[in-house]
Amino acid sequence: MEFYFTKMHGLGNDFVVIDAINQNIDLSSEQIRLIADRHFGVGCDQLLLVEQPVHANADFKYRIFNADGSEVAQCGNGARCFARFVVDKNLTDKRRIVVDTHAGQLVLNVAEDGLITVNMGIPRHQPAQIPLNMPQEAKRYTIQLDSGSIEFAALSIGNPHAVIQVADIDSAPLATVGAVLESHPLFPERANIGFMQIIDRHTIKLRVYERGAAETLACGSGACAAVIAGIEQNLLEHEVDVSLPGGALKISWQGRDQAVYMTGPAGLVFEGRIIV
Amino acid sequence: MEFYFTKMHGLGNDFVVIDAINQNIDLSSEQIRLIADRHFGVGCDQLLLVEQPVHANADFKYRIFNADGSEVAQCGNGARCFARFVVDKNLTDKRRIVVDTHAGQLVLNVAEDGLITVNMGIPRHQPAQIPLNMPQEAKRYTIQLDSGSIEFAALSIGNPHAVIQVADIDSAPLATVGAVLESHPLFPERANIGFMQIIDRHTIKLRVYERGAAETLACGSGACAAVIAGIEQNLLEHEVDVSLPGGALKISWQGRDQAVYMTGPAGLVFEGRIIV
Repeated sequence: MEFYFTKMHGLGNDFVVIDAINQNIDLSSEQIRLIADRHFGVGCDQLLLVEQPVHANADFKYRIFNADGSEVAQCGNGARCFARFVVDKNLTDKRRIVVDTHAGQLVLNVAEDGLITVNMGIPRHQPAQIPLNMPQEAKRYTIQLDSGSIEFAALSIGNPHAVIQVADIDSAPLATVGAVLESHPLFPERANIGFMQIIDRHTIKLRVYERGAAETLACGSGACAAVIAGIEQNLLEHEVDVSLPGGALKISWQGRDQAVYMTGPAGLVFEGRIIV
Repeated sequence: MEFYFTKMHGLGNDFVVIDAINQNIDLSSEQIRLIADRHFGVGCDQLLLVEQPVHANADFKYRIFNADGSEVAQCGNGARCFARFVVDKNLTDKRRIVVDTHAGQLVLNVAEDGLITVNMGIPRHQPAQIPLNMPQEAKRYTIQLDSGSIEFAALSIGNPHAVIQVADIDSAPLATVGAVLESHPLFPERANIGFMQIIDRHTIKLRVYERGAAETLACGSGACAAVIAGIEQNLLEHEVDVSLPGGALKISWQGRDQAVYMTGPAGLVFEGRIIV
């Protein structure tokens, strides 16, 4: 099969984005793994297919596949790349785009300056919703690890997050505490572990140990989780700039039962054509 | 600057190959680093520019740049990709191609089956030519490392190589012995360290700890060095199949003062267009 694709990234989280509306695309898991391979293929963290919508009120559907060929429901960085792609390719003239995903519908807004705002949904705080093996909800939970006592906040943005406040982001114990907590029995579905340094009430630095991966350049839902955890503990205001290793995101959350909004860029890297 | 490129690989050693004859290409080190970046750029081990020849008897010149922007003289995997590129792009109708490089002229032959044979030059064996800090030439040298006594052969194929024979390639001590020997004072310009398991007199398995890098998928000059070392010790015949982690090469060497020939494939991955 021969097709055209666009290589994009959201803060260094990189995607092969394919127009599967105007091209007839049918990729096996094996072909996806080859495309994602950084030496023998195009190379990407994830592959994103842009398809016709399922529901009448939607403009598109997208599907995201990990480099191992497995399909995932959603991804904040991918959502921004998707929005820039359909605008750049003139697949729509709308700037408010409704898209069907396996995690439900998303609404994306593309601003004049090219930044894209994603409604990331309403966070959930109860332990059973995260899921977290704790008897009742708390602003912070405490556990004993071999390395000492750790305090963390926990919530779900579609996927489970723990957020640990640190004094210095550069020395945050991602490889030790992050790796242990990610697969700790407290989190039956494991968790993304964020380490947050608060600079002021509108600014944080963040590094995330992602579930099933390791430290990544930028985790969009992790940025949302950190800001929500900070607001819940009255450490942050409602609009916060988040500095991640791959770049910056702006997170906005007005409080309980409100959706959280993530605003950030999507980068175009190159256009390609491949036969697989 | 906007230009077209081809992503290729030689046994997984991957290249961004650019026609700098029909395109006006002028890349800074910073632009090369961006192109080579696997998240924010195209991603490659090395970038290869195809240019007009310098000498009247040559068909082309090529230049190779590492991902850090530094220029290197030569690369066996790159030479094969170059040859397939100029044939595929109809930049020549010859199948015997003479190319100027910073390490002198190379002669490349493209066979009917697409395999490319590279004359890798005449190996040098004297310690001063390698360079190796030993008083006189030997088939094998012995040194004491913290981990024990190590025997190795040494020679130069334009760059310095040590070759260590092992019983089992999978358990070869690349991370320990490879890393130590690569920058050992015995090798004032450091060395590529090959670990060779002899299967029979026509077949070896090889893993190489590359100078200034680490273990790589396939080192063309390392494959030549291993076969030459095996022939010198009367362990191998003159034509040997070398199995590397990234694929297979065929090495041919008739003995002292003869050139060594490497035959292998070059893979086309995709065509691209980028603005940098």
